[in-house]
Amino acid sequence: MAPLRSWFSIPRGSHFSLANIPFGVISTASSATPRVAVAIGEHALDLEIFAANNGFSALSTIQPHQAVFSQPSLNAFAALGRPLHSIVRKYIQSVFAVDTPYPDVLQTNSALQKQALLPLKEVQCHLPFKIGDYTDFFVGLHHAYSCGVMFRGEANALNPNYKHLPVGYHGRASSIVVSGTPIRRPNGQFLDNPTAEKKVPIFSPVKKLDYELELAAFVCKANKQGEPVSIREAEDSLFGIVMMNDWSARDVQSWEYVPLGPFNAKNFGTSVSPWVVLMEALEPFRATGIENDQDVLPYLKEEHEETVYDIKLQVDLKSGSGNSSTVAASNGRYLLWSFPQMVAHHTSTGCNLQPGDLLGSGTISGTGSSERGCLLEQTENGKKPVKIAGGEERTFLQDGDEVTFTGVCGSDEEALVGFGQCTGRIEPALQLSF
Amino acid sequence: MAPLRSWFSIPRGSHFSLANIPFGVISTASSATPRVAVAIGEHALDLEIFAANNGFSALSTIQPHQAVFSQPSLNAFAALGRPLHSIVRKYIQSVFAVDTPYPDVLQTNSALQKQALLPLKEVQCHLPFKIGDYTDFFVGLHHAYSCGVMFRGEANALNPNYKHLPVGYHGRASSIVVSGTPIRRPNGQFLDNPTAEKKVPIFSPVKKLDYELELAAFVCKANKQGEPVSIREAEDSLFGIVMMNDWSARDVQSWEYVPLGPFNAKNFGTSVSPWVVLMEALEPFRATGIENDQDVLPYLKEEHEETVYDIKLQVDLKSGSGNSSTVAASNGRYLLWSFPQMVAHHTSTGCNLQPGDLLGSGTISGTGSSERGCLLEQTENGKKPVKIAGGEERTFLQDGDEVTFTGVCGSDEEALVGFGQCTGRIEPALQLSF
Ligand SMILES: [Ca+2]
Ligand SMILES: [Ca+2]
Ligand SMILES: [Mg+2]
Ligand SMILES: [Mg+2]
Ligand code: NI
Repeated sequence: MAPLRSWFSIPRGSHFSLANIPFGVISTASSATPRVAVAIGEHALDLEIFAANNGFSALSTIQPHQAVFSQPSLNAFAALGRPLHSIVRKYIQSVFAVDTPYPDVLQTNSALQKQALLPLKEVQCHLPFKIGDYTDFFVGLHHAYSCGVMFRGEANALNPNYKHLPVGYHGRASSIVVSGTPIRRPNGQFLDNPTAEKKVPIFSPVKKLDYELELAAFVCKANKQGEPVSIREAEDSLFGIVMMNDWSARDVQSWEYVPLGPFNAKNFGTSVSPWVVLMEALEPFRATGIENDQDVLPYLKEEHEETVYDIKLQVDLKSGSGNSSTVAASNGRYLLWSFPQMVAHHTSTGCNLQPGDLLGSGTISGTGSSERGCLLEQTENGKKPVKIAGGEERTFLQDGDEVTFTGVCGSDEEALVGFGQCTGRIEPALQLSF
Repeated sequence: MAPLRSWFSIPRGSHFSLANIPFGVISTASSATPRVAVAIGEHALDLEIFAANNGFSALSTIQPHQAVFSQPSLNAFAALGRPLHSIVRKYIQSVFAVDTPYPDVLQTNSALQKQALLPLKEVQCHLPFKIGDYTDFFVGLHHAYSCGVMFRGEANALNPNYKHLPVGYHGRASSIVVSGTPIRRPNGQFLDNPTAEKKVPIFSPVKKLDYELELAAFVCKANKQGEPVSIREAEDSLFGIVMMNDWSARDVQSWEYVPLGPFNAKNFGTSVSPWVVLMEALEPFRATGIENDQDVLPYLKEEHEETVYDIKLQVDLKSGSGNSSTVAASNGRYLLWSFPQMVAHHTSTGCNLQPGDLLGSGTISGTGSSERGCLLEQTENGKKPVKIAGGEERTFLQDGDEVTFTGVCGSDEEALVGFGQCTGRIEPALQLSF
């Protein structure tokens, strides 16, 4: 399929080609109230201004709902449902198409172009959703396997439940922040000497601060409490996908997590990329996930094989002294369970999802030594430092380190469907005294 | 101290004496919009109507904030802070006092009495807060110990971290419901034969449905992300306390919870009592918790010894055929860690709490055989059925069973500070087909 061409200048290699049209929430210096936008090339199209200036004049279905674009989150737009997301995305594509049927709307309307097309450099991105509940899964099998080997050996690497259900846990919603927000190294309670017979914990700035490379899906559809979402309908509950960094303090995690799971190890901050790529934009990049060699129970059985997406993922680490290196590459295909399977399992008890809920995939690693989605795995819990530029090396993150995830689908430089970046820089811990 | 006497009729033995003044959210058949109220004896005082009719005329500090009483949740009132909660509570006590300095406000204003004092029987109670994040702790030591003995033996009953930090996990906020809401038995994935070598899970209505007797505190104060709340200030973050039933599917829990903790076993519903008892009302009932024989790290060390509350707790079970029995008694004192310690630990990483967040204590059991806060513990995982009236017995909950928690402080029948009830009835599971 030939790429969609635009009358508007979209640089080759842009993540935000006309094939994408991701949604986000922005504000600007001159207009500080957050509102909804889409990203196109190196610009954001401010949908509040676009709507207020008859941008949707040729799209009667959206007109009764235009107030959603003035909201400070995507929750209201998402709640309109997948058919409307599709209509709006396709309309925006047609407005920007080189042969647009609606030239008056924007192509020949230079006043509106000036008002509504804002250079991304001048735009501040906000957390795209008001997140009610956040669930983090653990379905990156290669990651689960190598961490399992590290702690329990090959024979017991995967727990008995792992291939029967998408293992997950509730995460902390309040501390999810948008890419670019600095992350302060937390203080925490942990064992400074975990192998000592007597377990004497200390409380100090954590020493094993790590990132986790994840994808995460925002929910657009509410189900009533007590009413499961079937695997056949689960796709309709998904709005779109972002990259997520589930920052983790490994020393805290190993001390606290038995028996109720990770808590303080991960509650201090989680970063997400600002532009939400709609499920529809990802359709051409469907791929087969990791094969499950166990019988999957009917409530989790997908009809089709291509349940995940071929998303090239990359982790870059820039030290405080400015040395930058790519430390890992991975792919969105490396999942044992799909997002619809996560929805079906999560709601199988009758648990109610709500628009704006966030579902994380868990760390996504490949099988190769340069495909590890976190430092715990890549350095074997600190035993094998990873070399970065300038002769520096890392076991875990140091203050001043900046971690950047990049994700992109496709290879046609004029039709990429990309996620932009998810980045965060580590600030020194507070020195607490008692 | 002699009890506060009222010109208004408050029955002896009422949980809602003048010493209490708990806050909630109500609506009525004639006025369906939820708004804020307090409970007094067998009535609710509708604070929206009270405020609109000059009820707060003698309290200038609250006048700029009166809109909080028209909100459908307590979040805005709670966010005003503890000093204002205290002022409002004491003012309402003085308005109802037999020697009120403000007789015109209500005592001699029969028109306002008629409008604002609504019989509790005619009032519908709503979930008192819009809950952002819900955290459930596990600090009922006797419960943790007896469950530990059951699964790991006496020597390893408590995990090594248990006495060093308040163990907790993130829970599901969206499915928290107010007392009285029916709870549908969930379907779930579990091992029908857990001891078999080959682990073959089934998906079916759960068979080991249980309750958990807990207290839970609502948060009233936000801390900024990255900024811990010190143990000295933690009390200011707490608005008040309710009873909570953390319904749990034990068969699902035991199959799913390694390594990331309980998820589907508890995400289908959690019930809370509707009337939130302010921390100030609980002050006279402070008590010493369970002594911690380990060194507590300074960030968790409380200045005072009386960090928990003497709250008499009771569990009643009524079967579908109407047989009702008290199956357990327990007490709010049976906690190893206090709510301020939970706040200090939770935020020690910089995790941000928000008004409306809910912190559960974990199951509260005593040491006696009739002091077990859940059936798992009381029946030793189904091995020793508990007898209830009418010759019936239970290992776990059956469809039609109604579980009711009652909680009360004090013994002076004219000055009880009670929590009312937290109740829920089990509805049959959906029969799902694939
Ligand atoms: Ca994770
Ligand atoms: Ca619990
Ligand atoms: Mg996180
Ligand atoms: Mg629960
Ligand atoms: Ni009356």
